[in-house]
Amino acid sequence: MEKNQDYQQALKRYQETEKKIHAMHYASSLFFWDSVTGAPKSGVEARSMAVEVISGLNHTFLINPQVDEDLAILELHADELTDTQRVQIREARKNYNKIAKIPIGEYKKYNALITRSEIAWEQCKEDSDFPAFQPYLQEIIDTLRRFSDYRGYRDHPYNPYLDDYEEGMDVKQLDVFFDALRKRIVPLLHRIREKGKVVDSGFFQRKFPLPDQETLSVDMLKWMGFDLSRGWFKESVHPFTIGIDMDDVRLTTHYYEKDFLSGFSSTVHEGGHAIYEQNIDPALRGTNLATGTSNGIHESQSRIYENNFLRSQPFCDWIYPEVAKRFSDPFKNVTSAMFYRAMNKVEPSLIRVDADELTYSLHIMLRYEIEQGLIDGSIRVCDLPEVWNAKMESYLGIKPPNDAMGVLQDVHWSAGLFGYFPSYALGNAYAAQIERALRREIDVDGCLGRGDFTPLTGWLSQKIHHFGTLKNPMEIMVEVTGEPLNPQYYCDYLEKKYTRIYDL
Amino acid sequence: MEKNQDYQQALKRYQETEKKIHAMHYASSLFFWDSVTGAPKSGVEARSMAVEVISGLNHTFLINPQVDEDLAILELHADELTDTQRVQIREARKNYNKIAKIPIGEYKKYNALITRSEIAWEQCKEDSDFPAFQPYLQEIIDTLRRFSDYRGYRDHPYNPYLDDYEEGMDVKQLDVFFDALRKRIVPLLHRIREKGKVVDSGFFQRKFPLPDQETLSVDMLKWMGFDLSRGWFKESVHPFTIGIDMDDVRLTTHYYEKDFLSGFSSTVHEGGHAIYEQNIDPALRGTNLATGTSNGIHESQSRIYENNFLRSQPFCDWIYPEVAKRFSDPFKNVTSAMFYRAMNKVEPSLIRVDADELTYSLHIMLRYEIEQGLIDGSIRVCDLPEVWNAKMESYLGIKPPNDAMGVLQDVHWSAGLFGYFPSYALGNAYAAQIERALRREIDVDGCLGRGDFTPLTGWLSQKIHHFGTLKNPMEIMVEVTGEPLNPQYYCDYLEKKYTRIYDL
Repeated sequence: MEKNQDYQQALKRYQETEKKIHAMHYASSLFFWDSVTGAPKSGVEARSMAVEVISGLNHTFLINPQVDEDLAILELHADELTDTQRVQIREARKNYNKIAKIPIGEYKKYNALITRSEIAWEQCKEDSDFPAFQPYLQEIIDTLRRFSDYRGYRDHPYNPYLDDYEEGMDVKQLDVFFDALRKRIVPLLHRIREKGKVVDSGFFQRKFPLPDQETLSVDMLKWMGFDLSRGWFKESVHPFTIGIDMDDVRLTTHYYEKDFLSGFSSTVHEGGHAIYEQNIDPALRGTNLATGTSNGIHESQSRIYENNFLRSQPFCDWIYPEVAKRFSDPFKNVTSAMFYRAMNKVEPSLIRVDADELTYSLHIMLRYEIEQGLIDGSIRVCDLPEVWNAKMESYLGIKPPNDAMGVLQDVHWSAGLFGYFPSYALGNAYAAQIERALRREIDVDGCLGRGDFTPLTGWLSQKIHHFGTLKNPMEIMVEVTGEPLNPQYYCDYLEKKYTRIYDL
Repeated sequence: MEKNQDYQQALKRYQETEKKIHAMHYASSLFFWDSVTGAPKSGVEARSMAVEVISGLNHTFLINPQVDEDLAILELHADELTDTQRVQIREARKNYNKIAKIPIGEYKKYNALITRSEIAWEQCKEDSDFPAFQPYLQEIIDTLRRFSDYRGYRDHPYNPYLDDYEEGMDVKQLDVFFDALRKRIVPLLHRIREKGKVVDSGFFQRKFPLPDQETLSVDMLKWMGFDLSRGWFKESVHPFTIGIDMDDVRLTTHYYEKDFLSGFSSTVHEGGHAIYEQNIDPALRGTNLATGTSNGIHESQSRIYENNFLRSQPFCDWIYPEVAKRFSDPFKNVTSAMFYRAMNKVEPSLIRVDADELTYSLHIMLRYEIEQGLIDGSIRVCDLPEVWNAKMESYLGIKPPNDAMGVLQDVHWSAGLFGYFPSYALGNAYAAQIERALRREIDVDGCLGRGDFTPLTGWLSQKIHHFGTLKNPMEIMVEVTGEPLNPQYYCDYLEKKYTRIYDL
């Protein structure tokens, strides 16, 4: 009886904790949304003060001995919990251990380092000055290596960070994954370059009035199945999606007058993320499970809409007349076939965020190999520019003229985000594998050919979105596709697509 | 030495407390701003959860024995504090005592009552059903009477609530104040009605395209001296101003296509509030003093722009050609003199928020008398409709056809906001008294006659806005005008203005 009371009380206390964490998360999301959608720049000082307090409270609410004790009691009574509660507790324990095992002094020092490092990175990138950034990166790597020891790991000190963004993922699996990509995508790219076929995409750089781009984006979101009445779609400098609640999902895009594809494909990409967040089971509201299960699975949902659907032949054929009607000037003398090819033009670029569908994962592979080497000490920070440039040349056949366009291009490392990049490539591979399963049950080409996303979004929602974080990435993949991640499907998909487009 | 350490530590702890309260306040402000400027309605459930947590945290941070102890230590060391710190501590103590003396159980029960009561009021107003609302109001009054006892008061149980919104204000002073208004405004209104002069304002109800109204509002805010780069101006159903920080002041208005005056005067009114918040000394950032000192003084700043400036003859003469140029159709055959008279038309209305400048304070007087009677028990809740209607007839000469347009019209009482209404009338009277002081130093008519607010806004900022809550209302009035509140100036102002307009 007394023990049972303990457990009931622990559950009640834990639920109160989660409510508080949820409120802090909500507030942080709103601070961010507000700051990038119109808040006056002059408010930055007051906002920083408030954001610092809220992130401190968030830490205090989660990392304290009472939470540790409550979780321990609930873990002992796992049998008495509902399925949802059991996963909630497992998630909470994971988040707890991630931070609690690190001495608080070192944790705070690291956060201060990150703040300084992000500011330094911005300047170093502008100056293309890697040596000036090197000491920051060195300290970050040293700290992360030490944190791995505190947290404990199997096999490789990089593993805890991979697991942070993709539960269950590790170096062993990712080595196999990227090996497959290296063996099949690099040769494919070489064949395309040797073929020398020119794809014209110049018409995407003509003049596209911003209001018309916006109307098209809004219509596209509706076609995809995003419910605008339960969300908010605006513009910001960098497109993003934020799931405040399944009934309050916000996304942005960014339009350029002289670039049709950038704004439109960002809308579709973020729309995929947003549809995921919007279709999570309302029963999970307010819990730590009411969000997509991992970065990789999330990315699979943005990529399946952006690449597998939007850039497909049947959908391009369906949407092109509509687009050409709305933007008649820039698309004069452009055929549907030209439109499709331009949407899928392969052109190795120095910058990851500008990469096409085929070369994107190669940018990630390069970063994965470097992160692994930095964390296990086999790559020295001082050698980074050289290593970066050599890999760029080997995988993509191009060499950065300076470090700003090379090793300094991404914000991630300055923010301590190690282990994050792989989820972009995983997303692409998951998307191909999921699309394959989808095709077994639904006439995907038929749907896309008549612009009908209802069956596609319905299937994805039912099989994936609905569960939020109730299932981990591996469970999702096995249940939806019948097997764990298998990169061959992704490579098959790319080979088939580009062999046709480039007449290989 | 040890004692000094105690004091240093108490100061540090108190400053941490204030930081947390500031962050919660910031978050609450943002939740509100977000919810009324476009957030999807469907997000209400998640938002309610978060808002509840944040208001709970706000309470926890302020009302706990450690804060009480810290304040006590700091009060003992008042001599060692800076001037600003001393006022901060005084404010904090006031806020602490306001809540801490009430038993926590009763406080929570009251908050739950308010939530239910606000919902009930909405329905009762729709149904014009006072008896259905009566039990809620009865329970609120009973609770507030009990809370007065807990809090302690001098002379009258209504006094603590008056002091909440207007530091230092009490029944004794307000009785004198409203007596003066009753003796001079009611007869003035009777003279106007007897005179029977018809003022045409029908042209304000013609068609005013919304985008043009918005442009005019933005221009007007700039003319007034509001710095749009340190704020955010949007539209919402009910106009309001929120000072998140002196460098992040947000305000809204609401436009109606067939009502020129509503949106425009709301902009000017909120603009006055916003200019106040924007000109607070940045040295007060993040403290509990970084906001206007009281509701009454705040209202004086909105009213001085809306009534004393905007509705003045010289400003109407200056702005009319500009307005007539932008809205040429509706103002065809309208002269500047007609425009000025229409801006100042007197027409007793049943609804407070629609009241003209002259009758507005009479609506407040009626509410003040009723609140006082309800709290001291001399008016019974069940008699309220009858009392309301009798007073309406006596002061304004009109009688509500139903309770929705009478006693049920305002949300305030359902939300427990007793003591709030008087600040509206105080604002009007303060404004007249402040304008009189302003005229001693600056050629107000000259400035308004050339649309030049710079000297006016500059003077108000330097004399009032700058200090935030560093000075209380009485200190402001004495230092700025040379004497405490004196309602005769307000009555003089009204008599002079309306005698001319209505040829009395």
